[in-house]
Amino acid sequence: MADRIAGIFAPNLVPLDERGEIDEAELRRFTDWLIERGMHGLFVNGSTGEFTRFTPEERRRIVRVVCEEVNGRVPVIAGASEAHVGETVRACETYLGYGARAVAIVSPYYFKLGQETIEAYFRQIAERSPIDVVLYNIPAFASPMSLETIRRLAELPRVIGIKESSGDMGFMLRLLAAVRRDRPEFSVMTGAEAVLVPMLAMGVDGGTHSTANVVPEVMRKMYDLVRGGRLDEARDLQLRLLELLDLLIAVERPEGFRAAAEVRGFRMGKGRQPTGAMQIDVDRMRGLIEGILRA
Amino acid sequence: MADRIAGIFAPNLVPLDERGEIDEAELRRFTDWLIERGMHGLFVNGSTGEFTRFTPEERRRIVRVVCEEVNGRVPVIAGASEAHVGETVRACETYLGYGARAVAIVSPYYFKLGQETIEAYFRQIAERSPIDVVLYNIPAFASPMSLETIRRLAELPRVIGIKESSGDMGFMLRLLAAVRRDRPEFSVMTGAEAVLVPMLAMGVDGGTHSTANVVPEVMRKMYDLVRGGRLDEARDLQLRLLELLDLLIAVERPEGFRAAAEVRGFRMGKGRQPTGAMQIDVDRMRGLIEGILRA
Amino acid sequence: MADRIAGIFAPNLVPLDERGEIDEAELRRFTDWLIERGMHGLFVNGSTGEFTRFTPEERRRIVRVVCEEVNGRVPVIAGASEAHVGETVRACETYLGYGARAVAIVSPYYFKLGQETIEAYFRQIAERSPIDVVLYNIPAFASPMSLETIRRLAELPRVIGIKESSGDMGFMLRLLAAVRRDRPEFSVMTGAEAVLVPMLAMGVDGGTHSTANVVPEVMRKMYDLVRGGRLDEARDLQLRLLELLDLLIAVERPEGFRAAAEVRGFRMGKGRQPTGAMQIDVDRMRGLIEGILRA
Amino acid sequence: MADRIAGIFAPNLVPLDERGEIDEAELRRFTDWLIERGMHGLFVNGSTGEFTRFTPEERRRIVRVVCEEVNGRVPVIAGASEAHVGETVRACETYLGYGARAVAIVSPYYFKLGQETIEAYFRQIAERSPIDVVLYNIPAFASPMSLETIRRLAELPRVIGIKESSGDMGFMLRLLAAVRRDRPEFSVMTGAEAVLVPMLAMGVDGGTHSTANVVPEVMRKMYDLVRGGRLDEARDLQLRLLELLDLLIAVERPEGFRAAAEVRGFRMGKGRQPTGAMQIDVDRMRGLIEGILRA
Repeated sequence: MADRIAGIFAPNLVPLDERGEIDEAELRRFTDWLIERGMHGLFVNGSTGEFTRFTPEERRRIVRVVCEEVNGRVPVIAGASEAHVGETVRACETYLGYGARAVAIVSPYYFKLGQETIEAYFRQIAERSPIDVVLYNIPAFASPMSLETIRRLAELPRVIGIKESSGDMGFMLRLLAAVRRDRPEFSVMTGAEAVLVPMLAMGVDGGTHSTANVVPEVMRKMYDLVRGGRLDEARDLQLRLLELLDLLIAVERPEGFRAAAEVRGFRMGKGRQPTGAMQIDVDRMRGLIEGILRA
Repeated sequence: MADRIAGIFAPNLVPLDERGEIDEAELRRFTDWLIERGMHGLFVNGSTGEFTRFTPEERRRIVRVVCEEVNGRVPVIAGASEAHVGETVRACETYLGYGARAVAIVSPYYFKLGQETIEAYFRQIAERSPIDVVLYNIPAFASPMSLETIRRLAELPRVIGIKESSGDMGFMLRLLAAVRRDRPEFSVMTGAEAVLVPMLAMGVDGGTHSTANVVPEVMRKMYDLVRGGRLDEARDLQLRLLELLDLLIAVERPEGFRAAAEVRGFRMGKGRQPTGAMQIDVDRMRGLIEGILRA
Repeated sequence: MADRIAGIFAPNLVPLDERGEIDEAELRRFTDWLIERGMHGLFVNGSTGEFTRFTPEERRRIVRVVCEEVNGRVPVIAGASEAHVGETVRACETYLGYGARAVAIVSPYYFKLGQETIEAYFRQIAERSPIDVVLYNIPAFASPMSLETIRRLAELPRVIGIKESSGDMGFMLRLLAAVRRDRPEFSVMTGAEAVLVPMLAMGVDGGTHSTANVVPEVMRKMYDLVRGGRLDEARDLQLRLLELLDLLIAVERPEGFRAAAEVRGFRMGKGRQPTGAMQIDVDRMRGLIEGILRA
Repeated sequence: MADRIAGIFAPNLVPLDERGEIDEAELRRFTDWLIERGMHGLFVNGSTGEFTRFTPEERRRIVRVVCEEVNGRVPVIAGASEAHVGETVRACETYLGYGARAVAIVSPYYFKLGQETIEAYFRQIAERSPIDVVLYNIPAFASPMSLETIRRLAELPRVIGIKESSGDMGFMLRLLAAVRRDRPEFSVMTGAEAVLVPMLAMGVDGGTHSTANVVPEVMRKMYDLVRGGRLDEARDLQLRLLELLDLLIAVERPEGFRAAAEVRGFRMGKGRQPTGAMQIDVDRMRGLIEGILRA
């Protein structure tokens, strides 16, 4: 059986060229850099990867390019949510062929659905997918999954973990209590870097964080510090990270992260979502990044 | 210049066959029936039409089939929201070719965006679309549009109206006050059948309602009664409609409407979203439908 | 049996003197003015009357003074919510003695309570109160009451009506449908002046509105116009009123209303809640008031 | 200067006799027990103490009785929110005389107020209070305080700390970052026992928790374990506590806590809020309490 999902995964941004098309060369260069800076894995077609703003063909291409470039060095989790179960299962099959470790399926969005429907949806996909499935709970954008729904889905052999992005520590603790007893190999990853250190201290397996596109070294260090029992140092980094994060999310997602990845030396290009005139303080961003890298 | 959008539009359901594919023949038969029962127009690829659960190619096919079948008898508004502005503009071009009267663009969803970004998004589409644009505000599912954003977008010649589905009467009155003065030809359609009669009485141009898939005759009658000054009769129908509506929305959208269209004689098939075991009381549904048709 | 509650009630502001104490003389003068300007009744100790910002003794004094001044000319509804059921019942007894027509009891606030508890609370009060009870549902501030809870409470002989301040037209229509059939004498008053005209057009008995402290003549006229079948004229007034209302609620409640009552010639004094530096545009307020009075 | 507020405080329940009046003898016995079981302090007239359901006189009596009984053994924080600033300041004066260490003032409730108004309110009280003030932020029930508002109020010498009951770990970390730098002696107490251990691990000074009425020994032990660097043991207790907590909050607050305090041997009596028929599983409650006491 494949390894447990754990550690810090980067939900990678997608560089675009001047025509707004995927910049494949830069995506490969960015992928290498993330691995070199310590990422335990990549999470492709996540929210930060703006999966909703690419066509189905583009989503496949992004997964293919990243899997090729990663070439087995670290596990790749590929977002595979498509228009309906049939299309999603076809994406699962494709991503297995590309070498992904698992797919991530976001809870249904647009319509706000009830728990039985959410469960039926994941259950159908899990039963038909030839590749392991990671649940993706992000209540800010998609139908919230209840503890009981997650617990029941965690009984399915194909469902190996969850990316839980509510950021709600009480929910996370209840989730750990619910799954650790009956399915200890189930992986619990948080999507909320604002509370990464306490989440790790309380027992989550790792995290998948937008800021890993900006300061992957720091995210990795926070993980290593907590695992090494050096909570005080981890807490200081956490507070510094919050200051950077709050700057990055002060503009429309994920434009702040795109701008910050440019600061780190990548040509991200203009995002696909037209935005109003955004005030991004690049100098302050640069200062915070440099400060946290030195900390 | 083309006629103003007004009256009752049906946001048509999409019949599916036993394999879950679009049942084109039944879609044509359903389209005819809606027109024969008095619909002033059709609204294709709306929320009730489950546009998010079809692929881009399927969305195009649905618009093509409906436009062909309508064949100019009534105006067709085609939902044209795609993954990004470029794809959306291409859909606009296609739907113009199919003979649609206008496209509808839903406010960005998944990410919850700010007003400047929402405005920039619609502005880019309006500037590049070769076909008239209807704004689609549905705060339950997509980024809410503010009054000021709508007012500013209503200044664009290409933006001819709005489908406003908040159901908030105070918001609607403020909207009417804001646009009637500066752009009297701008069309304001409500998406909230729960309050259709008071909305019409207060001055909206019409509505686009899921229940028009079930009792198009009744929706048309409510419109005609208010226009004819027979508010008391309209109010009685409104209260009866609420009872039916509450039954239809007691299950996941739009399964109740699909089941009710079956009661009216159409093979809608199983919806694309897997659901838990739903309790649909078809007998009560039939009784309420028959009752309101006789009222 | 006493008359049905109907028409426009003013939830009167409480004038304060320079020491922040109740200005009894001005309260009497204000009460007279409200009646002279056409109010069908007064609603004392409502939200606009800031009942939470007065002590139990002050609340009693306010009711006593208003009842004395009204002296039977119009019905007075007195807010009687106190710390617990026993205290509330004692206030009910007191207000009966003062000559109030009914008491209003707000749904429990601070703690957000479930429907069974809300029902139990009102039921205990209704069983022990010697004076008729009006339910007061204001979900923005207090535990929301469900339709079913209201419907069940409307079965109690002592419960003669509701002040429903959600402003949700769909909720109101369902409420009318629920109570009109089984308890036609139950009075349904809206608290939402933003939608007064459509609410009246759809069948509510009247309203209790903060703006009645500012333009009682206009609120009365809106009521009379709808009752007289002159919906078009009522709609114009409604839109004008919205513009004034939006100015009045642009600052902390009910400071805008207090400032506007000063424009009408009353010494309201400084409110009890310390506020930040508020921008109240008194000139614009005066202009809107004069405009709507002339309309 | 007095000691910093830190450790676990019990927001004590108020025992009632069969007539629904304060049972002073039992309140004294309960107070002693809480201190004997390790509480670092008491928090009187908190939400769990149902301060809104007592009259102003009763609130004073509760503080007097507890202060007398405590007799200086541990600090007492007394909830002093009254109808308006003047009354609140009078309560502050009274509670200073009773020997309270500080008062707690809840953010304004019922009306949802803006940040400037919230700040002005606390500022007026802090300027006039003769006793130290603890801010009380509980967004579920009262106007939410922003980080910036708290940071600015923390500059006032009279404002010595906050009870922060949002339970939002990200908010808490930002709060710690904001106040630790400029006002290190400012005390940050969490009200959310669901996340007590991670909060303590991240640097809060302590907590004020409803469950301290039920298992004060356990709450104290959780505190001591985190302070002693034994995070793993603390985490196990935290998960066990969650199971108990979820049972206690499955019914209307604070009835579950009252029932559980009865299990611990106190006559709490029937609460002041009439409730529907509640299902309290006392046997399961007893089992969970005994289990966590043995853990």
